[in-house]
Amino acid sequence: MSQQPPARVGDAVGDIDTPALVVDLDVLERNLDLMANAVRGAAVALRPHAKSHKCPDIAFAQIERGAVGICCQKVGEAEAFVAAGVRDVLVTNEIVGTSKLRRLAELAKEATIGVLADDIAVVGAIGEAAMAAGVTIDVLVEVDVGAKRCGTLPGAPALAVAQAIARTAGLVFRGIHAYHGGAQHLRAPEARRLAIARAAGFASTTKEAIEAAGIACPTVTGAGTGTWQLERDSEIYTELQPGSYIFMDADYQRNALAPDQHHFEQSLFVRATVMSTPTRERAIVDAGLKALAVDSGLPLVYGMPGLSFEQASDEHGTLAVAADGQPPRIGDGVWLIPGHCDPTVNLYDWIVGVRGERVECVWPVAARGALR
Amino acid sequence: MSQQPPARVGDAVGDIDTPALVVDLDVLERNLDLMANAVRGAAVALRPHAKSHKCPDIAFAQIERGAVGICCQKVGEAEAFVAAGVRDVLVTNEIVGTSKLRRLAELAKEATIGVLADDIAVVGAIGEAAMAAGVTIDVLVEVDVGAKRCGTLPGAPALAVAQAIARTAGLVFRGIHAYHGGAQHLRAPEARRLAIARAAGFASTTKEAIEAAGIACPTVTGAGTGTWQLERDSEIYTELQPGSYIFMDADYQRNALAPDQHHFEQSLFVRATVMSTPTRERAIVDAGLKALAVDSGLPLVYGMPGLSFEQASDEHGTLAVAADGQPPRIGDGVWLIPGHCDPTVNLYDWIVGVRGERVECVWPVAARGALR
Repeated sequence: MSQQPPARVGDAVGDIDTPALVVDLDVLERNLDLMANAVRGAAVALRPHAKSHKCPDIAFAQIERGAVGICCQKVGEAEAFVAAGVRDVLVTNEIVGTSKLRRLAELAKEATIGVLADDIAVVGAIGEAAMAAGVTIDVLVEVDVGAKRCGTLPGAPALAVAQAIARTAGLVFRGIHAYHGGAQHLRAPEARRLAIARAAGFASTTKEAIEAAGIACPTVTGAGTGTWQLERDSEIYTELQPGSYIFMDADYQRNALAPDQHHFEQSLFVRATVMSTPTRERAIVDAGLKALAVDSGLPLVYGMPGLSFEQASDEHGTLAVAADGQPPRIGDGVWLIPGHCDPTVNLYDWIVGVRGERVECVWPVAARGALR
Repeated sequence: MSQQPPARVGDAVGDIDTPALVVDLDVLERNLDLMANAVRGAAVALRPHAKSHKCPDIAFAQIERGAVGICCQKVGEAEAFVAAGVRDVLVTNEIVGTSKLRRLAELAKEATIGVLADDIAVVGAIGEAAMAAGVTIDVLVEVDVGAKRCGTLPGAPALAVAQAIARTAGLVFRGIHAYHGGAQHLRAPEARRLAIARAAGFASTTKEAIEAAGIACPTVTGAGTGTWQLERDSEIYTELQPGSYIFMDADYQRNALAPDQHHFEQSLFVRATVMSTPTRERAIVDAGLKALAVDSGLPLVYGMPGLSFEQASDEHGTLAVAADGQPPRIGDGVWLIPGHCDPTVNLYDWIVGVRGERVECVWPVAARGALR
């Protein structure tokens, strides 16, 4: 069910078959460098989240710039990256079920593998999988520091899970996962600052409780593209997990930035083609719900003032042409900024890398569809 | 980038790896039969839309029950179905660009291929592709009968395109495409009835204008799962294109039905697993935005009163447990009804077909990701 690449190396940008996922390599590299430089010298490691790109070529670009490894969200994603040669993967999720845990343990024969737990009841099964495979698996306790998703409460409940991990053969307790997903898209810098201050407080309390019980807690990991500077400077987090910073999207661009906050540029686009111009006010492109995730809003039209993306159906995108806008013609290419990068990337088998007017690379989205 | 199947034939339903796309075969077959029987004997043909399932096994189940062929939305979808042996495909979309038209014409060597046009400017290019491949391509004029997407205005503008098609070597003018997408999800039966009455009027006016100019207009095609009985009984439509009726989804289930309207049952589910139960009020499943399209609303939890799907992040689904609901346990399976079937199916490489408690088949979603 894999699709053919939409372009070949050396093609002109205008010849990319559409819809296609296209990354501006100059911008991507600036984003990669900006994050690498901003973390270098700080007391934190960078472990970018690979759920955003699902692409080993980009993971290696991150690792070459100093990342200690990557995060994944599913065992299937970890399998794709380990198969490509990544040697340190933290699965930032609870993994349930014998077959998934068996696959996870298998990966630990080739790479350093970490996973989360937030319930004593599941710790034994992870240990059994590790012992059966003859490996050790790093386990971190997921702590709910404000996201209200998975995670134990801070303090004593987290300690109880840490103790269970520490006494289970085959497992190594590594620390706590304190990711505040809900803080990433708070629009006001001050709201994000407060949320991460609270999260850091919960993380600190929890680390202290664990260490007071005589268990080392070397890692406190978390952070995303919206807040990573706050965790970096928190003096409690030891590892940052941003993912979207490499690409950005319309939703992240809606965050207001603090004066001292780094700005990442939009590198990711969906290239679409106008296929119908029924009226002066309306043009239809060949990219709809199956080419663009709309959970965080519709895409933005890039570089064509007077055009806006008004509606998405399965395979159609309806553009409105403003009274003072230039109506596009059938066959015209259109650049769209996805509303949300991660689930949009997951719709494509290939990322087309362009530099200037030429296609420089076509990267497989190796973990596309790796849901399990 | 294709994923391994989540189950094997003969597996117990409880052993399906999750998240997985699962169809209840008994229900699917009842839906297939209901539509086939409702069209049999009527003066209309059934050409179901394959963009909903992207699965040749289901296309053949439709054709075996009397469908004259299928609809596709993209050339890549048509390629997948022709490769699987389907011999009559209408691409219900405008196709732009030399390489796509070349691929379309190539398919016409093996199957009857139709496509839409809504602008005189594109007709010549379709003809050139047909001539270059030594084939004929059926072309229908897309008429905007109320959807305000693609399509010429009814009457004279459609006639002008029909005349261009009729005089272009390599092309056969087949009729008009009069699909009213906007009517499908109007909640009140009377609103849908009025919308399709207007659409049928526009279709009739247009067909008369074309025939008055001496061009035969044998086909008037359109209709979807929300309105197909209205088009069937319109005495102007000759062909129906419903897609979702085989699966249904939460959004279609929100349509109020007219007293005489057939009811299709929910056959399509996403099977998920509870991976975390942080509080009595909250449980987290392993299916989020990459497992469920949310453009038409969040999924519904099936068969577990007191549980509701409250929020989706990339790979997490947050369930709320009502005060009188039974809290699920880690490892429990959960059945979810997708908000919108078509883009949800496109997230999966496999459809697991179950009958009772057993997996009976695992079908490839052959046109998954066929965006181009």
